[in-house]
This record gives sequence, C-alpha cells and structure tokens, in this order.
Amino acid sequence: MKSAKYTLLNLCLALLITSPTNAQELLPRNIPVPQTVSPELGAIISVRPSSDWDKHPKTPQEWKIWAEQSAQAGAKDLPLLCEKMGVTVEPDLIAGVKVFWVTPKIIAPANRDRLLIHFHGGGYVLLPGESGTGEAILMAGHGNIRIVSVDYRMPPDFPYPAAMDDALAVYRELLKTHPADKIGVFGTSTGGAMTLALAIRVKAEGLPLPAALAPGTPWTDLSKTGDSYFTNEGVDNVLVGYGGWVGAAAKLYANGQDLKDPMLSPVYGNVSGFPPTLLTSGTRDLFLSNTVRMHLKLREAGVLADLIVFEGVSHAQYLMSLDAPESKFHFSELSHFFDQHLAQ
Amino acid sequence: MKSAKYTLLNLCLALLITSPTNAQELLPRNIPVPQTVSPELGAIISVRPSSDWDKHPKTPQEWKIWAEQSAQAGAKDLPLLCEKMGVTVEPDLIAGVKVFWVTPKIIAPANRDRLLIHFHGGGYVLLPGESGTGEAILMAGHGNIRIVSVDYRMPPDFPYPAAMDDALAVYRELLKTHPADKIGVFGTSTGGAMTLALAIRVKAEGLPLPAALAPGTPWTDLSKTGDSYFTNEGVDNVLVGYGGWVGAAAKLYANGQDLKDPMLSPVYGNVSGFPPTLLTSGTRDLFLSNTVRMHLKLREAGVLADLIVFEGVSHAQYLMSLDAPESKFHFSELSHFFDQHLAQ
Repeated sequence: MKSAKYTLLNLCLALLITSPTNAQELLPRNIPVPQTVSPELGAIISVRPSSDWDKHPKTPQEWKIWAEQSAQAGAKDLPLLCEKMGVTVEPDLIAGVKVFWVTPKIIAPANRDRLLIHFHGGGYVLLPGESGTGEAILMAGHGNIRIVSVDYRMPPDFPYPAAMDDALAVYRELLKTHPADKIGVFGTSTGGAMTLALAIRVKAEGLPLPAALAPGTPWTDLSKTGDSYFTNEGVDNVLVGYGGWVGAAAKLYANGQDLKDPMLSPVYGNVSGFPPTLLTSGTRDLFLSNTVRMHLKLREAGVLADLIVFEGVSHAQYLMSLDAPESKFHFSELSHFFDQHLAQ
Repeated sequence: MKSAKYTLLNLCLALLITSPTNAQELLPRNIPVPQTVSPELGAIISVRPSSDWDKHPKTPQEWKIWAEQSAQAGAKDLPLLCEKMGVTVEPDLIAGVKVFWVTPKIIAPANRDRLLIHFHGGGYVLLPGESGTGEAILMAGHGNIRIVSVDYRMPPDFPYPAAMDDALAVYRELLKTHPADKIGVFGTSTGGAMTLALAIRVKAEGLPLPAALAPGTPWTDLSKTGDSYFTNEGVDNVLVGYGGWVGAAAKLYANGQDLKDPMLSPVYGNVSGFPPTLLTSGTRDLFLSNTVRMHLKLREAGVLADLIVFEGVSHAQYLMSLDAPESKFHFSELSHFFDQHLAQ
C-alpha cells in the first residue's frame, strides 16, 4: 500500500498540494430527496427543475407580462392565506410609496409599539402589488406583529435606484412615528438584499439604524461571484442557475450600474455598526454563498450575526410550504429574534 | 410567452408540483476556485481530489499501516507549529487514558482556571499519538488557553465504545480538579462528533455538562444519511465521498453496532439541556448536512447554537492553513465563544 493513496486528509496542516486545478470537474450523478425532512418540505424538494430554466424575458414588454403573471399566480392564494393566518392586508401610501399594512388579529403585548418593514423577493422584477405580501402575512400571523410590506417600484420602468429610494423614503417616514429601536426589517432573496442595502444607505444618510435585520437567502452579490452559483447550479430546483432569468434580472435592475456597487450588492458594503442580523439559507440554495459571505463579513465586523442553513433546501424553500414544520420553525426563529432585539 | 415557462419561482406558496422526482439528475460541470477567499485558502481549495479517493484499507493490518502513515505525516511539522504558536506539548495519563497537555507560553488572565478538552479528527482511525494534537496547538496558541488533547483508543484494535469510554473517563477525572463550568470541549470531524456524543453520555451518567461545545464539521451521522453526502460528493476535495474510506471507517468503528445509535451518530441523540454550542462547516463540505442537521436539532431543542459556514471550504479546510486569514478568524471565533461561555 503506497503512502500517497490515502494522505489527502491530514488535519495537521501537512496537506500536500500536488495537483492544483483552477476548475474542479464534477461527474454527472443523482441526488435523492433527503429522507430526514418533513413530507411537506420533501414534496417541494422533489420538484424537478424546469428544463426551461435558462430561458428568460428579452424585451421590456416580455418582462412586464411575466411580472404580471407572477402577480396573478402570487395573489391567487392570498385570501386563503390571510384567513388561515388571521391577518388583514390593507393598501396605503407612505411618503408617496405604495405599501401594504399587514396586521394580525392578535398583536402580542410586547409587540404593541413594534413594527416590521418587509421587502418582498422576486429578483427586482416579480411579485408587484399585493402578490408580494405572502411572506409578510406568514410573519405577521406567526409573530403576532404589525408589518409594513413595501410595494417598491421595479424595472423595466423603474430600475435602480428606484427600489432603494422607495425603501429609504418609507423608512424615513416611519421614523417620525416609530423609534428606530422598535423597528425590524426583513425579506427574502431580493427582499433580503434590500434589507441589507437599506441599512447601508441609512448609515450613509446619518439616520438611526433599525434594531434588527433578518435577510433570508439575500441576493448580496448581483454579479456571478460566489461559490454556490457554481456548486449548486442544477442542484437548486428553484433558481437553478445564474445563467437563466437571475442574471438577466440583475442586469435589468442595474441598468448599467456596476453590479458590484455596494448599494446593489451589499456584500461589498460597509457593515460596521450594523444591528443584530439573522441570515437564513439552505444546503442546496444557489444563494448559499450570497448568504454565508455576508454572514462572515458581518461577524468579521463584530456584528452579532446568526446563521441558519436548512437541510436539503433550495432557494427560499424554507418558507414555501405553509404546513411544513420547517416553515413554522423558520418563522418562530424570526419571531424570537425580533422579540429579543426590538425595544418594547 | 407561455406562463409555465417562468413560474417555478413563486414566493407566495403557489409552487406548482408538476414533475416530482426521487433523484434529481446533475450534469457534469466545472467549479472554479472562488476568487473571494484568501490566496492561502484558495491554494487548498484548488487541490484536485485524489483519483484514488474510493480506495481504502481492507484488512486490520492495512488500517494499522495507514494510521501509522498518518501519524508520521501528521507529526512531521508539529515542532515547527509548536514553535510558531509558542506552545508546548507534554504526554500524560489521565484515568489511564493517554493524553497530551497542550500549553501556551502565555495564558490569558481570564483563562487561568479554564480548561479545554480536545478530541482530534481522522475518522476514528487516523492521527494517533502526538499527530492528533495539531488543532489543539493552534487553539492553545490563538486562544491563550490550556488544553488536554485526548489520544483515545481506536480501531481496528479498539472499536466502539473504546473511544467514548476514554473520553468519558478523562472528563470524569478532570471534574475532580476543574468545575464543569470552566471546561469547554471541542474538536473537528470525528472530534466534533465525540464532543457531542460526550455531552449526551455525560447527561446519561448524571454528571454536570461542560460549559460550552465547539464541534467543527462534526461527523454526526455515520450512516449515509444527509443531503451533502450526495450533493457535495466530488465537490469536497478532502473527503470526496462517503463511498471511500469514510464509509469503511464508519463500519470499522461501529463494529456491528447500529450506525444510527446516538452514541455513534449524535444527531439522533437527546440534546435537551445542552450548553451553548458553536458549529463550523464550509459550503463544499461533505459534512455540511452533518453540521446543519445538528445545528437545527439543537435550536429546536432551545439550545443556544451558533453556526459558521465558510465560503468554498471543503471538509475541515478552515483549519488547514496556518497562515490563512480564514483560519485565524476561525480560531478567534472559537476563542471568543469559549471566553463568553466559560466561567472564570
């Protein structure tokens, strides 16, 4: 038995760098649905990725049609969801920006003066209008807390910085009635990136920071930088790969701006002084690296930053099944987190 | 443009389960070395996985020869490492178990009465004797804290439960001179699993639990259960896959015992009342699921459990480069964690 055969694992720093490569080759293989997740989550994990994943709208008109389709599909089940969660949704304008007040029947005594701000996901193009409120409805119902869900402007008509201008305008206006230490901010994917970018912008504007941030699988890097863009391509059955609509939406939103501008890709921003932050992802998530790179950056800056990675979960699937225990666990983690860090 | 084309992403729970599959097919592809990690870490990530990864020792004699080779390779650089970290290593016996006292030149005032117990990695077969102390030397030097590194018995001569009997015997003996609230326990891979299994056993024995646990990429499931055993096969350039020496070592250690026995696979154990626990892994780690499943289980049980996942990192690579900033960050996280949770 030759010594070279088994020596790659060497925990005592004697790793031999015999054969470096710039791009490791992966063989084709099958990945079974994990057996340790709940049946409800397992059903979502077992969805075969669309074979059309790399097709995407090409013209402004096509983007608008697709956004409208997402709005219709997304709004379809909202009445049922509201009923099940005991939540009402009412449109309003704050500082001229369209928002929805998402209010649970029961507001926990500790949450009486607290407020969460929510930014929906959808790559800066999907889920306009009420269709973007699903996550806020779940959070309001699980957390017994009042939420303002922001229906920010989106491309193709309103590329960057419209969405962030809207986010800031709403926050600035809400500060007049709610002290910053009673405000938390959250959202998933694009909504997670906006949560982080808002904090960077709030710092730059000299405003007080919110008390806590909970970005779920945040799109912290709009450029194709981050290991899981490569390792989880085809593994993630939701986004599938950067080369589909994801990368196209990044360009549409950026509208010529540098994709690595910290206001578009907050992983490049200055995060010193950030409030406590809870990040969430999954082992199969195309945005796993978007999440862990941000988490590491926050911890390096001395921020109290927590990370939860769900087993077997692709992009944002931890909130896609209303009845999955994993989803309830997720919202109970968020509720506990905000309860811990928001002033009463 | 048909609506079916782009509707997979639907954050409002309307996900269409059109085409379930029990095993998703992955295409061959290349994964580049991530550009955002340090050059030192990048060098380790760029190591091509061994083409012999699925070969492993077959007879007790072959296992012993391989373990001896790992001991020689692992011990080679220890004098240099000790010098660089300002640490001394002295053999001793505690309750009849071979251990090493790993002592830094400078002990931080807060750590004067504190002690860490270390279990080395290596699949319950590798790194016997002094060769298993590398991680403890790094921790002692970075954390300015005294460590007992346990040279527990291993198969083929001493399969389960010898290693855990040794772990418990050392802990029980050290309790006579050190209160449990000044003791922390840590280790990587097999050492991480032993850290967790010890806490389960300590509970069962009615002994006081240590004050904090820091299992790095712990081998919490010896059976091939866990999503990253599949998704990160061939992605992880250290362990590469379960079908190589990893699975063979599991069977050698278990020696006929159920691989899912909680004392062998602590992810199946009762973790209620566990002390604060910090878990570490990497996005390419074959044991990513071993890590996050344990993390989720601890949080569900109400344990204060933190998770750090390093970008682009395969199994245990966060500690393999002495000079990588990521490695320094890792040991500073461990130091901070123990400092926070151990009594003075």
